[in-house]
Amino acid sequence: MDKEKLRPNLYVVLTHYPVVDKRGDMITSAVTNLDLHDISRAVKTYGVKSFYVVTPLADQQGLVQKIISHWTKGSGAVYNPARRSALELIIVKDTITDVAEDIKGIEKVYPKTVVTCARRYPTSTGYKEFRDILESGKPHLLVFGTAWGLAEPFISEADYVLEPIMGPTDYNHLSVRSAAAIILDRLLGTK
Amino acid sequence: MDKEKLRPNLYVVLTHYPVVDKRGDMITSAVTNLDLHDISRAVKTYGVKSFYVVTPLADQQGLVQKIISHWTKGSGAVYNPARRSALELIIVKDTITDVAEDIKGIEKVYPKTVVTCARRYPTSTGYKEFRDILESGKPHLLVFGTAWGLAEPFISEADYVLEPIMGPTDYNHLSVRSAAAIILDRLLGTK
Repeated sequence: MDKEKLRPNLYVVLTHYPVVDKRGDMITSAVTNLDLHDISRAVKTYGVKSFYVVTPLADQQGLVQKIISHWTKGSGAVYNPARRSALELIIVKDTITDVAEDIKGIEKVYPKTVVTCARRYPTSTGYKEFRDILESGKPHLLVFGTAWGLAEPFISEADYVLEPIMGPTDYNHLSVRSAAAIILDRLLGTK
Repeated sequence: MDKEKLRPNLYVVLTHYPVVDKRGDMITSAVTNLDLHDISRAVKTYGVKSFYVVTPLADQQGLVQKIISHWTKGSGAVYNPARRSALELIIVKDTITDVAEDIKGIEKVYPKTVVTCARRYPTSTGYKEFRDILESGKPHLLVFGTAWGLAEPFISEADYVLEPIMGPTDYNHLSVRSAAAIILDRLLGTK
């Protein structure tokens, strides 16, 4: 089968606002270098179309662009071409609304939004169910929050909330890097 | 069902020797702070018994101990108790042989070793198959290599080689943090 045809109509965004801190207060978090590397490599592995990084802060946007540039144009691109082909999937935007507009420009319709959360919601969608939804071919935007997770109003407004990732314990404090990798594998892994 | 009974008889080791660099030469790699955080949080989520970190270098062992101490005894433990309960699963050893001896002291038998590799081997074991093997309750040690992966002689000597993690593309350059999270989820995730 043509692998290209199996590619999902999926976009990923990692957002630094609106997220909450450990007390639940809304904040803008700082960019973490390894989030960019790890999630872009996972996004590349699973055939996601683009990896958006959202921060409203100009200096943080500059930092992201500097990291991307090092690995896609600088000496990093020569040193490690596999890293370049992952990091060149990153697109920086001010807001999640800007991301949705960007995708509408490509797909002609707004994407449905899918959020992830460490808490279970009554309306949570399972991974098998969402795999089937993705097979419709309609565009979807999978949203990951940094810090202590996405702010509540944003979760309520999403089209889907995925079930929390759980193992055989009650501990649910994975890093966003690990959660993104696991969720992409559950949705798009070939087993 | 009692969740405790579903816990696997599994140990994880992240090793910094013997691994290879991008040219395939055997090296000792440097410890990466976020490997310790991300993999210990995944290990805690999936009920793994201990997370061994192997490096033969005394200064690197000191660095690992300093990081663990900050989060398990220092101000980090007060700031973030969830991080403490993950990082306290880390045990530092000189060699993988020392890890096997440590596990023998606990389990009375040596663990079977399971390695992961981005290449497919004729004898690779699938995830479903290895889930069944783990249900035997016998001790197993899952080995992750840093840098460009485990050195070849070590892979050949392992009891099992897990299949590479693939999505719907040919790109297979996940970080060790992402690969560890995905593999633990494939082996131990509750879906």
